[in-house]
Parts: sequence; structure tokens; C-alpha cells
Amino acid sequence: MGKKRAVVLLSGGLDSTTCMAVAQSEGCELFPISFRYGQRHAKELIAARAVADYYNCERHLVIETNMEDIGGSALTDHRIDLPVGDLERTEIPATYVPARNLIFLSYALGYAEVLGAAEIYIGVNALDYSGYPDCRPEFIRLFQQVADYTTKAAVEEGRRIIIKTPLIGLTKKEIVQLGQKLQAPFHLTTSCYAGGPEACGRCDSCLLRLRGFAEAGVVDPIKYARRPE
Amino acid sequence: MGKKRAVVLLSGGLDSTTCMAVAQSEGCELFPISFRYGQRHAKELIAARAVADYYNCERHLVIETNMEDIGGSALTDHRIDLPVGDLERTEIPATYVPARNLIFLSYALGYAEVLGAAEIYIGVNALDYSGYPDCRPEFIRLFQQVADYTTKAAVEEGRRIIIKTPLIGLTKKEIVQLGQKLQAPFHLTTSCYAGGPEACGRCDSCLLRLRGFAEAGVVDPIKYARRPE
Repeated sequence: MGKKRAVVLLSGGLDSTTCMAVAQSEGCELFPISFRYGQRHAKELIAARAVADYYNCERHLVIETNMEDIGGSALTDHRIDLPVGDLERTEIPATYVPARNLIFLSYALGYAEVLGAAEIYIGVNALDYSGYPDCRPEFIRLFQQVADYTTKAAVEEGRRIIIKTPLIGLTKKEIVQLGQKLQAPFHLTTSCYAGGPEACGRCDSCLLRLRGFAEAGVVDPIKYARRPE
Repeated sequence: MGKKRAVVLLSGGLDSTTCMAVAQSEGCELFPISFRYGQRHAKELIAARAVADYYNCERHLVIETNMEDIGGSALTDHRIDLPVGDLERTEIPATYVPARNLIFLSYALGYAEVLGAAEIYIGVNALDYSGYPDCRPEFIRLFQQVADYTTKAAVEEGRRIIIKTPLIGLTKKEIVQLGQKLQAPFHLTTSCYAGGPEACGRCDSCLLRLRGFAEAGVVDPIKYARRPE
């Protein structure tokens, strides 16, 4: 009998790459899924592919979709400015993409069903995150409920597909420590919203990442145009 | 103040077109959303566009996505045969597309949020349907729960987006009667899975439609290659 299969939502960033490492350490055969959804830059897809190759995945599914035609986010609409990093703000920032995690998990569920996978890994994180509602534990719990009523696998065969969120209770520091312990290929990842040749070091995502590495006492191996003092 | 806005999932078939008529009769400004998801034929998108034009919609959003790369359905994979119509079968048929309604509703939710729409209409139907799990009331109820935890609109402003299923408790006969009363443009619709120049009259979808019209005592205005005796 082969390994159990797992679909892993892979953006090419720190969190999803650590999820790949966790899923592998738990004995899964990895089936990463990524999305070209009209985001500002393709750099994260190049990173995702590199991570998938690093783990020798049989297949890396890339879903193509024009989510930018829905609009409403600085990540998919160039007319909306990217917010400059401010980790203390309390409102949901302009980088929020309406229903993104719901859409991504829905595709992952269909893919898991076709593959016969028992698990979907998603690197959501409710502590050090950007304030998006669809990263919270309650969102995942409710998605699990709807998943259990959606698939033919669950309805006809009682075969549930479980949403696994190994990072949900971790700080960014702890994610870096976990990834390092599991030898996640941090050098292949990218987290920057701006998507330049080097990470900007200024957006929310860069700030969160750099703070996590600093607190973990680990050197972030990727290049930055600017590192905070 | 303008009319309230509603997103309507529009496939160009009998049910979703009747949903357009219902939403209009309830005073909504209609924002139809359709999907080019690797289905066998584009005929339903042509029908959807004609229905959107009939209702003078300001915009008809077509989401493009390679769901066929997920596979697992006769509707998106030409290597899987379309089942010949059998309305008495009990298992879920090969035309089931894994997680399709979940994916479609998730996009509709993001779109509704961006538009400031308060409602999403979907023409699911739990009586005369093809046995898909994601057409059942419980699925819709659970999706509503997750929707209430997903959007920035709901989380920050308490502005819920309601999933409306006006056809869920109707038979096909009653749907035909409702659509006729509301002058839904049945002549523009298509329901056939096969997608030929005329409806095949043999697939599940044609059989359900024809039975509905016959029981309602209404003549189906579209052309069929063959009508059952």
C-alpha cells in the first residue's frame, strides 16, 4: 500500500512551505495545489514550483482563474495601493482578497476527493497574521462541516476529508523554528507582497516574516532590498 | 437609493434562469455570475449571456478556471462517458463535479462582498435533481454558516450575505410554472449535458426538463433532436 495522500495549499511562502514539511514528516505523499488568480506578480508561483520540486512531488496542480475580475483587493487590483507595513493596525487591510481561502479550500476539497486524499493541509495562522477573517479557527471548523456535506466521498462512503492546520496556534517565531527543525527549504520561499527581484522588507508580509526569523534567532536566507534596523 | 443588488449563479439553464426571474420580481438589481470551468461545451455560456442580456444586466461576470485539471467528472473529462438518462438510479452519477457548487458559491460570495450585494441566488433543487450532495438544504445551511465567518463585510460590519434558494423545495413542474408566471425567457435557455446544436433529449438533464414541462402542461420552446414518446 502506498503512502496516504495529502493536498497541500502551497503559495510558495514561509507558512505553506512549512506545511509541506509537516505533511511530509507525517508520512504523506504531497499533492501541492497553487493558484494563479490575478495576483500582482508570478514570483510566488515560481517559488511554489521550486518547493514542489524540492519535495519531488509527482504533480503540482496550478489552478488558473481570473479572480481579479471580482476585484476588491490590493493584491489583485493595481489601482489599490499596497498598504505600507503596520503590524499594529486593527482593521482588516487592503490586501484582504474576498473569500480567497474559501475559494482555495473548495478547490482543494474537490482535488482531494478525486485523488482519494484524506487530508488537506493549509498554513493558516491565527496569531501572527494580517487580520484576515478566513484564517481563524472558527472559519476552518465551519468549513470542515460544510466539507463533510459536500463530497460524494463523504456522503456515499463516509470518507471524510480532514482540513489540517498545523500552524494555526503558532507564532511566526514558532513557525520558523518548526520549519527549521523539519528542514523546510526556506531559501526557496517568497513572502513579499510587492514581488520585486528582492523582498521589499516593508510590506506587512515582509515585516511579519522578518520579525519571526529574528525572534527565532534564525537568519532568513532570502534577499531583501532593505532590512529593518 | 438604488435597488438592492443580488448576485445570481447563472448557468443558462432552466433553474438558474428562473432564479433570475425570481430575483428580479423581488426587486433586485441582477449581477449574474457564470463559469467557464472546462465543461464539455460552451453552449451554456452563450445561453447565460443571452439571459443576462434579456434582463439588461449591467455586467455579466464570467469566471474562467481550469477545473478540468482536477478531473473526476464526465462533465469536464471527455474520457468519462456521459451516463444515458436514468432518473430512477440512486447513486450519485458521473456528471457530479467534485465540490462544484461549493467553488461556485465561494466565488459568488467574494463577488457579493465587493458589490455590496446582500443576497446570492442559486437555483439548487432538492426534489427533482440529479442526486448531487451539494444541492441539499443542509449543504446550503452549512455554507451560510461559513459565509457568515468568511467576509470582511460580515465580520467588521455585521453585514451578512444571504444565500437564497427559491427553488429548493419545488418540483421541476413547479419550477416551470413559476418561471412561466414570471415570464422567464425559457426560449433562451439550454439544459442538455451533450451540448449539440439541439438538446439531445436523452441525458438526465433533458429528461428532467422535459418531464417538468410535460407535467406543467407547458410546451418547452427549445429544440430537441429527439423527444421521448
